[in-house]
Amino acid sequence: MKIQGQHRLSIEANPATGQVRLLDQTLLPHEVVWRELHGLEDSAEAIRVMRVRGAPLIGATAAYGLALAMRKDATDSGLETAYNTLLATRPTAVNLRWALDRLRTLVAPLAPEERAGTAWREACQVSADDIAANAAIGRHGLDVLRRLHADKGGEGEPLNVMTHCNAGWLACVDWGTALSPVYHAHDAGLPVHVWVSETRPRGQGASLTAWELREHGVPHTLIVDNAAGHLLQRGLVDVVITGADRVSARGDVANKIGTYLKALAAREHGVPFYAALPVSTIDWKIEDGLTGIPIEQRAAREVTHATGLTDDGQRDEVLLCPADTAARNDAFDVTPARLVTAIITEHGVFKDNLIELCNP
Amino acid sequence: MKIQGQHRLSIEANPATGQVRLLDQTLLPHEVVWRELHGLEDSAEAIRVMRVRGAPLIGATAAYGLALAMRKDATDSGLETAYNTLLATRPTAVNLRWALDRLRTLVAPLAPEERAGTAWREACQVSADDIAANAAIGRHGLDVLRRLHADKGGEGEPLNVMTHCNAGWLACVDWGTALSPVYHAHDAGLPVHVWVSETRPRGQGASLTAWELREHGVPHTLIVDNAAGHLLQRGLVDVVITGADRVSARGDVANKIGTYLKALAAREHGVPFYAALPVSTIDWKIEDGLTGIPIEQRAAREVTHATGLTDDGQRDEVLLCPADTAARNDAFDVTPARLVTAIITEHGVFKDNLIELCNP
Repeated sequence: MKIQGQHRLSIEANPATGQVRLLDQTLLPHEVVWRELHGLEDSAEAIRVMRVRGAPLIGATAAYGLALAMRKDATDSGLETAYNTLLATRPTAVNLRWALDRLRTLVAPLAPEERAGTAWREACQVSADDIAANAAIGRHGLDVLRRLHADKGGEGEPLNVMTHCNAGWLACVDWGTALSPVYHAHDAGLPVHVWVSETRPRGQGASLTAWELREHGVPHTLIVDNAAGHLLQRGLVDVVITGADRVSARGDVANKIGTYLKALAAREHGVPFYAALPVSTIDWKIEDGLTGIPIEQRAAREVTHATGLTDDGQRDEVLLCPADTAARNDAFDVTPARLVTAIITEHGVFKDNLIELCNP
Repeated sequence: MKIQGQHRLSIEANPATGQVRLLDQTLLPHEVVWRELHGLEDSAEAIRVMRVRGAPLIGATAAYGLALAMRKDATDSGLETAYNTLLATRPTAVNLRWALDRLRTLVAPLAPEERAGTAWREACQVSADDIAANAAIGRHGLDVLRRLHADKGGEGEPLNVMTHCNAGWLACVDWGTALSPVYHAHDAGLPVHVWVSETRPRGQGASLTAWELREHGVPHTLIVDNAAGHLLQRGLVDVVITGADRVSARGDVANKIGTYLKALAAREHGVPFYAALPVSTIDWKIEDGLTGIPIEQRAAREVTHATGLTDDGQRDEVLLCPADTAARNDAFDVTPARLVTAIITEHGVFKDNLIELCNP
């Protein structure tokens, strides 16, 4: 995807120098700042404070973080420390554990002096695999969008896609998950228009999705999260596509808080609801997502405040309620499988046959 | 209700001086500022820019506005100008037309020199009637909450009430509609806890509902609008109560955008959903609220920005998305009657027998 006309990745590794840098998403959409990762601590910090977010990108960042850690301490205890430190940064994202397990399984049997090089190559491969998977999600999703557009009739009418949070390029290394089909459609000349739900409390829809759609030239309109039911009721939405932070074996979808309300309203109005995700997002050990997927609780300050740009161009945070108001901040909710039309993965579109993906 | 320990009304008329002042709600919760109304223009402006909001308070303010206008120009054309100017301020609020019709019907047959005095007395009566109606809504609503609390079992456990936007004291002259049962319960010693939905884009939940509950000492927790489905799914909500801006004859409820999503989620989880409103909110001329109730479109800037207090105590507005992002801002949505458990009015609790209220 493009930033200011240049093709970039959201996390970039330089094979010549071994350096890793990432786009600091806490500063978007108002500033484009790249930060270099130097080791374990700043890799963990980048995930914890959400300089990077989105399940696939968290996985890729954790992989690079482990590889950087191996350069400094490749002992068994160094490996365990790096693994546990990175794993503790975000409790819901299953890709985090998946990426860390992938690297640990590979390097743990090696002699310490071989670990750094192997971990680095594998981290680069995690990134490359993510790009390939998301491109494939886009191709499978494009088939879905083409069919919906044909069903809608009216050749030149755009297909109205509603999304939530940011499951675009910025949530991955490239392409995105939920937005990959949208980019593929736009590039293929299928007219699409995206309803961008702002996604309080952190506003990733307003700040990230609106920004990346704009950079790519995809028509879009920002709405408050409250508007989703009304737009679906009035026939202004043809399909809802979100990403996922974790999916259970039976297809329950844990995603950004508010996803569940959109799924309920989509079902009420007969509008298809898709989750788009790489297979690594599926946690095969959990059957019932409602009881099995832990829901991260985040700081009350995200709810009591909003961050943006003042009229004089300064980033600032404003208090929205009386000082010291108690607030609860569940980061995710779980949409039960019965509300999900189908899951779009890099291996195709699946509904009641998710289990086929166990050994794709 | 109380502000800083003193009993106040949200709009206050001084019978000795004929002065009217109102609490400027655009500055809450950070500043308590009272503004005097001098005539038609500032009365209309106060409604238009939402210094006052909430259907009942809009009606009361319009009534005082018409009375003030009659002091300056009590001719037939002055009456028509005042009526039309005030009516044009907010398209959805049916109480606005109801209050204006009530005054016009009374004063139009009079000689011009009698109009100002009669309009003033009637405007004061509109306020008094609103206070009495909302107190009665509170008593009927308290019966509902007592029954739900008894059904819940667990004597000391609080009843968890979710509300949306502000349908409290600040939306009325006193007591509130949706919050009147809550205040009555709290005062009667029934333990209640309120989930306050922030209500983007204007944040009336965060800025107004949280403020007035705090002033009254009712336990409450602020949430983002996105969290409603999750809390309902997890059994953390016992009842949803909202206000209404307009209700159709069959009981469809037009209320702040986002109400519909809460109603859908409440139905999904078997949690009762009530709308609390004075009978004047019911528009008997409209049967189907989905086709018949116009939905006000407000400025995109409310969606692209948020207003609050900076750390150094200044009120400021911050941009949440890339500059010039297109936004859509429907102010209301319509919840169909079948999702509404019942409507709590000053005359009792009604479900499929709303028509009995036609001539209460």
